[in-house]
Amino acid sequence: MFGSYRSSVTAGVAVLVGIVGLTYVLAGAAASNGTTAGIEFTPDGKLKKPEGYRKWMYVGTPLTPNDLNGGEAGFPEFHAVYMDPESFAHYEKTGEFRDGTAMIKELSSVGAKEAASGKGYFMGDFSGLEASIKDSKRFKDEPGFWAYFSFGHKYPLMAEVAKKAAASCNECHQINAAKDYVFSQYYPVLRASAPRSK
Amino acid sequence: MFGSYRSSVTAGVAVLVGIVGLTYVLAGAAASNGTTAGIEFTPDGKLKKPEGYRKWMYVGTPLTPNDLNGGEAGFPEFHAVYMDPESFAHYEKTGEFRDGTAMIKELSSVGAKEAASGKGYFMGDFSGLEASIKDSKRFKDEPGFWAYFSFGHKYPLMAEVAKKAAASCNECHQINAAKDYVFSQYYPVLRASAPRSK
Repeated sequence: MFGSYRSSVTAGVAVLVGIVGLTYVLAGAAASNGTTAGIEFTPDGKLKKPEGYRKWMYVGTPLTPNDLNGGEAGFPEFHAVYMDPESFAHYEKTGEFRDGTAMIKELSSVGAKEAASGKGYFMGDFSGLEASIKDSKRFKDEPGFWAYFSFGHKYPLMAEVAKKAAASCNECHQINAAKDYVFSQYYPVLRASAPRSK
Repeated sequence: MFGSYRSSVTAGVAVLVGIVGLTYVLAGAAASNGTTAGIEFTPDGKLKKPEGYRKWMYVGTPLTPNDLNGGEAGFPEFHAVYMDPESFAHYEKTGEFRDGTAMIKELSSVGAKEAASGKGYFMGDFSGLEASIKDSKRFKDEPGFWAYFSFGHKYPLMAEVAKKAAASCNECHQINAAKDYVFSQYYPVLRASAPRSK
């Protein structure tokens, strides 16, 4: 009875180890192919609107309100930024954005400007969605291998979009972003998670 | 050989099912005890500074900048709000905050006020940490069973803190928050995730 139980457990552990090993191999393959869970492209290279990103790693929220930008901010208005969790795990270990890193910028309007907590800016409704993806194979001709996508600044969002010209987004990131095309200077979560800061 | 392999796999699956079942039971027990991963109390009921919450579900970021609040906002300045993932999964299914729900409010200073993306507010450094926890047993005398904690509005944060008096936090949440003491009116992520909105 105990012998039988123990051999079942041993077999079970062996299968578990096998599954964990397989998962690891698949994850490794995904990373080296520059693909990321929740990120899919059409056969002609358009990015499908990502799914599930609100459960990714939160990175930070810059705010460029319309009322401080002549009524029409370039990125209206709250920009909640997420990073895919596998790439974040890699960033935590290495301080680098791996091949396949996907960053999502979800835009929300300003709703209230005063609340019980004081005067300021409070999120209203979702208003837009953008993405940047680093992929040295798919985007080998983009500076830094980063490509940028916008699903629009109003709802309904577009279902799939082609990458923007480098002059539209990449160039500004290249010049102004502190770390590999990412504006880590505005993201304390990233700064605190980099290995050198621990 | 195949027979042996199949019986190993069968045993493995049985053990896996057992482990999954056990995990489910443990998770259920955790929920009904009002305990949550990353949340610990001292024997005398103080809340230890939570860990790992930056990987929780991101809920939203109100902003009450000091410069709009007489130089000293009640909550300076960005308030990044997180919810523990198990409670969020429950919220997605039911639209309710389960027993054991933990919300974290991490405060950051305003760093830059202008960037390539426009004029506005950009996160500087972490500056404070607060938490609210719903627990019908531990906080049976608090209105709505919610207790509130502040680890300070400057670094270094306190390592453990007693709950605040109901008049300090709970009362304002009770009066002004849209959904069970939570300011869901400022959190599009919560509104979009509630079952009725799907």
